[in-house]
Amino acid sequence: MAAGSKPAVAFVGVGRMGANMALRLRDVGYTIAAVYDTFAENAAKVARETGAAEAPTLSAVTAAADVVLTVVSDDRAMQDIFAATGDSLLTGASGKVFINCATVTPNVHVEVERRAHDAGAHAIEACMASSIAQAREGTLYLMIGGERATFDRVEALLRAMSASLRYIGPAGTAAQVKALVNMVMNINTAGLAEGLGLGEALGLDLTMLRDVFSQTGADSRVLETDGEDMQKRDHEVYFSAAHAAKDSHIALSLARDAGLSLPVAGATARQFDRLIELGIGDSLDKSGVAELAFRSRRASERSP
Amino acid sequence: MAAGSKPAVAFVGVGRMGANMALRLRDVGYTIAAVYDTFAENAAKVARETGAAEAPTLSAVTAAADVVLTVVSDDRAMQDIFAATGDSLLTGASGKVFINCATVTPNVHVEVERRAHDAGAHAIEACMASSIAQAREGTLYLMIGGERATFDRVEALLRAMSASLRYIGPAGTAAQVKALVNMVMNINTAGLAEGLGLGEALGLDLTMLRDVFSQTGADSRVLETDGEDMQKRDHEVYFSAAHAAKDSHIALSLARDAGLSLPVAGATARQFDRLIELGIGDSLDKSGVAELAFRSRRASERSP
Repeated sequence: MAAGSKPAVAFVGVGRMGANMALRLRDVGYTIAAVYDTFAENAAKVARETGAAEAPTLSAVTAAADVVLTVVSDDRAMQDIFAATGDSLLTGASGKVFINCATVTPNVHVEVERRAHDAGAHAIEACMASSIAQAREGTLYLMIGGERATFDRVEALLRAMSASLRYIGPAGTAAQVKALVNMVMNINTAGLAEGLGLGEALGLDLTMLRDVFSQTGADSRVLETDGEDMQKRDHEVYFSAAHAAKDSHIALSLARDAGLSLPVAGATARQFDRLIELGIGDSLDKSGVAELAFRSRRASERSP
Repeated sequence: MAAGSKPAVAFVGVGRMGANMALRLRDVGYTIAAVYDTFAENAAKVARETGAAEAPTLSAVTAAADVVLTVVSDDRAMQDIFAATGDSLLTGASGKVFINCATVTPNVHVEVERRAHDAGAHAIEACMASSIAQAREGTLYLMIGGERATFDRVEALLRAMSASLRYIGPAGTAAQVKALVNMVMNINTAGLAEGLGLGEALGLDLTMLRDVFSQTGADSRVLETDGEDMQKRDHEVYFSAAHAAKDSHIALSLARDAGLSLPVAGATARQFDRLIELGIGDSLDKSGVAELAFRSRRASERSP
């Protein structure tokens, strides 16, 4: 792509996050050349809204754009789209830049960077510590891992998507930080749920209790974002309980590799796992962990 | 005591919190008539600083003052000072007001209120969600449980000690809220320790990591108050790990009575218990829970 001009952009994975990132980039003058999603409906909708082509294959995505943003769900999806054989983003990828936004195991980013290099392309991770509204408004909190030179090449585009942009270090390091952020966030979320659940069991006024929490050592960001939702059982999905479980397990797997035992993170992961086992991991936001802690709610009846 | 005039005040328990509360009340014009502490050195020091008498017995404390503030360590100490027989604050207590500041099991406050009534006296709980500096400056966060009329009687004195004063409800309810605050605070503390400990094991820059936490869903009050201390191993005691354990267990006992299982609070309590088992529960601040989560630190070597 020519210096100073805006690169043509494509998206792989246009669920709620990817779709809103695409709309944001379109708004600020980027051409969304192609979109691809395993759910054809998602792709069709975003193609309509942004004027992008629906790419029939991954290699067609790469052919259509200078920069490909990927927002897929997990390690396996990342390995699939960057496969060494078959339909792959790496086909004809020489000179292209991949910006990988999924929260996945840090080593997957290291491996994808290596495969991209082998194909003459560049890959960085852009880990997002924010949600859908921020994607739409271009105010994401972005942490970048990978080669500094690649970051510099796409910095203008990343700035158009973010309110805070931070280069962390080599491939995998931004994903490590992201896993830690979500591990701690999940602990605070599950802990808050237990506090409110016990408050309810004691007959305390939960609005009062949240107010006291906010003014004391119990205060946290999740109290602000999830406390009222827990009280009102408003678990509309922004960040699903299943995603929370996945991210806690990424962190726990890093801990195991490092020979560290993290019992509070472990107990938290088991709570989110239980929501999955109850069949409600995808349909509840992470605030839904409160369903396990409130005596009056159905999920808690199935507690061990 | 006459309306509008300042009551004579006495203190039972003048450790770091009680001592600083006494100094504060003296500063704003209250007479500290008597002090009592099972550690004679504590009592002597505060007596010297405030001009109070060192009361030889609990009944002498009650005799010396209109209002007695108690800041003792646990359920047993509360039951001892309000004993039905032997030396007791309840001897000759008719018309006196007791303000009980310790974090104890809520039902202990209910029982003490009953015993005080039987003695013609009044008792309320004043639960403090703040630390030593706030005690000295008269900027405590105070939550009151007990009869509203008793609260009204000592409101001016309570206001002199606090930046935020809140009447919660009948005896025991403020202690319930306090137990919940500390339970959630302890979870967030132990969770933060695990996040920073894993960050260290991964070789991440912990100052950067704390900064990212502060800007994302991992943010919390304890990140502000304890994050840097955990990184720098500065565990000077403001709120000891042993006290954290005690408060988590008060909440867990309330949960058990309510038939609720709180696995994240349970895992957290076990971490603080381990600090006690290692013999460092009293000598480390709650931030010392990080000693269990950092691979490079001695306490973590003794992890199971």
